[in-house]
Amino acid sequence: MTSLATEENVAAAPGHVEFRVRPDAYRHWRLTVDGPVATLAMDVDEQAGLVPGYELKLNSYDLGVDIELYDAVQRLRFEHPEVRAVVLTSAKDRIFCAGANIRMLATSPHGWKVNFCKFTNETRVGIEDATANSGQAWIAALNGTASGGGYELALACEHIMLVDDRSSTVSLPELPLLGVLPGTGGLTRVVEKRRVRRDLADYFTTRPEGVGARKAVQWRLVDEAVARPQWSEAVAARAAELAARSTRPADARGIELTPLAKTRTATEISYRYVSAALDGARGCAEITVRGPDRAAPAGLAEVHRQGADFWTLAVTRELDDLILDLRTNETALGTWVLRTAGDPGRVLEYDRLLLDHRDDWLANEIVLYLKRTLKRLDVTSRSLMALIEPGSCFAGSLLELALAADRSYQLSGAFEDQDAAAEAATVTVDRMNLGALPMANDLTRLQTRFFGDPDALAAATGRAGQALSTEDALGLGLVTFAPDDIDWAEEVRIAIEERTSFSPDALSGLEANYRFTGPETTETKIFGRLSCWQNWIFHRPNASGPDGALRRFGTGQRATFDRERV
Amino acid sequence: MTSLATEENVAAAPGHVEFRVRPDAYRHWRLTVDGPVATLAMDVDEQAGLVPGYELKLNSYDLGVDIELYDAVQRLRFEHPEVRAVVLTSAKDRIFCAGANIRMLATSPHGWKVNFCKFTNETRVGIEDATANSGQAWIAALNGTASGGGYELALACEHIMLVDDRSSTVSLPELPLLGVLPGTGGLTRVVEKRRVRRDLADYFTTRPEGVGARKAVQWRLVDEAVARPQWSEAVAARAAELAARSTRPADARGIELTPLAKTRTATEISYRYVSAALDGARGCAEITVRGPDRAAPAGLAEVHRQGADFWTLAVTRELDDLILDLRTNETALGTWVLRTAGDPGRVLEYDRLLLDHRDDWLANEIVLYLKRTLKRLDVTSRSLMALIEPGSCFAGSLLELALAADRSYQLSGAFEDQDAAAEAATVTVDRMNLGALPMANDLTRLQTRFFGDPDALAAATGRAGQALSTEDALGLGLVTFAPDDIDWAEEVRIAIEERTSFSPDALSGLEANYRFTGPETTETKIFGRLSCWQNWIFHRPNASGPDGALRRFGTGQRATFDRERV
Repeated sequence: MTSLATEENVAAAPGHVEFRVRPDAYRHWRLTVDGPVATLAMDVDEQAGLVPGYELKLNSYDLGVDIELYDAVQRLRFEHPEVRAVVLTSAKDRIFCAGANIRMLATSPHGWKVNFCKFTNETRVGIEDATANSGQAWIAALNGTASGGGYELALACEHIMLVDDRSSTVSLPELPLLGVLPGTGGLTRVVEKRRVRRDLADYFTTRPEGVGARKAVQWRLVDEAVARPQWSEAVAARAAELAARSTRPADARGIELTPLAKTRTATEISYRYVSAALDGARGCAEITVRGPDRAAPAGLAEVHRQGADFWTLAVTRELDDLILDLRTNETALGTWVLRTAGDPGRVLEYDRLLLDHRDDWLANEIVLYLKRTLKRLDVTSRSLMALIEPGSCFAGSLLELALAADRSYQLSGAFEDQDAAAEAATVTVDRMNLGALPMANDLTRLQTRFFGDPDALAAATGRAGQALSTEDALGLGLVTFAPDDIDWAEEVRIAIEERTSFSPDALSGLEANYRFTGPETTETKIFGRLSCWQNWIFHRPNASGPDGALRRFGTGQRATFDRERV
Repeated sequence: MTSLATEENVAAAPGHVEFRVRPDAYRHWRLTVDGPVATLAMDVDEQAGLVPGYELKLNSYDLGVDIELYDAVQRLRFEHPEVRAVVLTSAKDRIFCAGANIRMLATSPHGWKVNFCKFTNETRVGIEDATANSGQAWIAALNGTASGGGYELALACEHIMLVDDRSSTVSLPELPLLGVLPGTGGLTRVVEKRRVRRDLADYFTTRPEGVGARKAVQWRLVDEAVARPQWSEAVAARAAELAARSTRPADARGIELTPLAKTRTATEISYRYVSAALDGARGCAEITVRGPDRAAPAGLAEVHRQGADFWTLAVTRELDDLILDLRTNETALGTWVLRTAGDPGRVLEYDRLLLDHRDDWLANEIVLYLKRTLKRLDVTSRSLMALIEPGSCFAGSLLELALAADRSYQLSGAFEDQDAAAEAATVTVDRMNLGALPMANDLTRLQTRFFGDPDALAAATGRAGQALSTEDALGLGLVTFAPDDIDWAEEVRIAIEERTSFSPDALSGLEANYRFTGPETTETKIFGRLSCWQNWIFHRPNASGPDGALRRFGTGQRATFDRERV
């Protein structure tokens, strides 16, 4: 656990948060690369919390720590393709990580807690993605106690090693000590991924002191226990072994994730390809994603040469940063309007270039990053509305934006007053929509859209590669509505206004239920079932009330519970 | 929607609730049976709400209405095996059902709302079970508008007919009007069961007026629209058609679900085979389920002759009633301790008799009812602890109680002071544990327990039919702990006390996550994802605060929302 705060409870007042960071500015992590093995050591600066009011003792973390972790995960994938195993450990003595900072949680507003946990979960799923799909196996080398979110972080790794020194433990003490859940994947991964028997998991999760190395191995909570004298050697050996299994190329040279060019005011955020107009009065952000401004490179060598300037990577990084920025800083903008602008043919050229070279590490990484960014959109608690107008390029990868939306409008005909001769809007299903960008439920967005309706799915995919008119797209069920010029402005205005008039909470619930039709996975369970229970518990007085466990922790006073079972 | 209450908001004060009811005492439903077709007509008595403070206008419902519905579903299965199709309709003109009574929801405590929705959901899943497994197809004959929970009730039926009269609609107006979700299955069934495309579902769910017959058919919200002049004839024809498809035997004679003999005081509930000691000080209910008090009948004829006295049916009815009673009336008893008493061999005789005759309608119904009752236990928000002692009969069907528990303790050896010569406690896996009683995730409790560990599952099932000693059961992973006489009392006492000391909310969340490992189904999504979102929303000021949508509805004042998206 973490900082035993003794000050009074003062509500933290989170300010503007930027997610852009670079390794040379890390306050909390040390990243070293030694050939095929990287070591990422957690070394949290107690005094460098993102928000005033708490100290990050015992390697406890807040959003700032997690932002750096996310940056490291990303850079390892793009800047260090030679890395085949990542050792996640602690630079502190006898403590791996004490989890999310309790005082931070206790003093944060409800929405901040929820958003923080979501980002934390996304990074962990990203670590699992690196292991599964990028040949970078993550190893949790627990050189000291891993409790709460610290153990949950380890659970995201492929292999967990715990030092066997008769004092280090793994534990999930949230329930007994704080009255909340191990809500960043813990409950789900313990039984689904580690396959700990549910009754043992129940016992483990109610035991604040956790379990030591030997029992942890016996119950499958960790993979191996190693005595301290053999520790460094064993970790190195395991890293070498996992690295040797990797299919990652030995001679690859990374590309630099150069600083994002971003300008931001109170009413606008803009990057090279992505921009957003922030409209507080209407409660919406109008996002425009621009297609490539030049033809696709002729071959792979040029993709590598362009690196972070390559359109797909650039636009994905910008969209990723925008999603995180808006989620965290613009919580009252409840509707995101999604537009694209550009040449659909060029989008498809870039897509096809990447898909033709999935065996290249960089092409593969770019597609995986796009996949993760679109998944971020899926779990974003904002209403998503796609507007498909003349001049747009909802094709292939960018069609996913419309498929991710809660509803879409495609103009029938032209805007007579603006450009009566403009080519009508089209949408194009292409190879990129047929498997490369699965959602958290392991289905494509098309499969999810047409869940249980194989004929409709076949009809839509059968038109792959064709620019579909509004009438065709509507008939195929690829868009929701197709107003013409006369109705467009009014219909869109009403849709946005209506959305803004509804209960924001009910909308979050509605969207979270409708977006994930079909099968469930560990990932959807984490974002759906587990996070949702945690949100409810976070909101209950038993946790967050003045006498609740989260607020009372560290005060020396026990929590007072309403004992009613709900 | 429902009663536009004009009185002030007065918090309802729910009193003791009994779930035992008989058709001749129904206030809200009319059940008529005409050969193979039964008609269940909703005819809610406005003045007969279960709790003072609201009027059940427009066929809106409260827990009392739902208790009668549940009784009707059960009696149709046991008392009317000749019924092959059930027409669910309304006895009122131009309104089918307006859903859960809003004023009741607005004035009910949080826990009451959650428990009410859970029971409602269970009854609807039971209707689907009757259609799928009992050859009783349910047809929703919407002779007028079905809104909110009214439409959600229709969604539980196999076939939905809507009168096409230019005024009747189906709708889910909860989100736009009340700021809550269609939380009793609506969001899940619309996309998962009806397979409505998610963007159309989104639009439908934000449209308070809903959609009329023709669009409802087009979007798959209903199966057919029928003009009023043809209505009665069409419903009768469809019922006859579905009845003709049923495999239900034509000549079967029902058995009477005789009144349950129950005595209840503030500290004890007892029936013939089941009893519970209510211990408010320790926050627990100590439940004992007794095995058969006589040998199993020699054959099927005797099972039919015994009817409701047949042990398995009797004990299931008692357990069902007890679960509902404790959930609703004893919310501060957070831990249920489960014991059995009797001859394990006799339990297995009854189980095998039933399984040998699954083609008999009554044997089949009894097994299905046991399945549903055990599923009720799985979604109960109480900690479940099984104590396996000498003289117990945790075998076959009753072993499921231990497998449903969050943890289990089996005594090693004997209680030296009580009966040193007693036969040691055993548990027995048997045929009943291998498929007849699946959980909501469609796995058996053994498969769920050993999820991802096929060797452990095979080892346990390989011992089927054998009475397993404590050491064997522990080794096979069938029980959690095996204290001996010296440690037993202390260990059990501490486990119960500890449970009672934890946050009740966090325990509900913990148990809901650990109990459903593995695949998800429409049913687990309703109880896991959807209900959980609804609980969170119910708790938020945007719904339930003084200015929230649920409280403001019908006052003429609009809700005031905190517009932050969480």
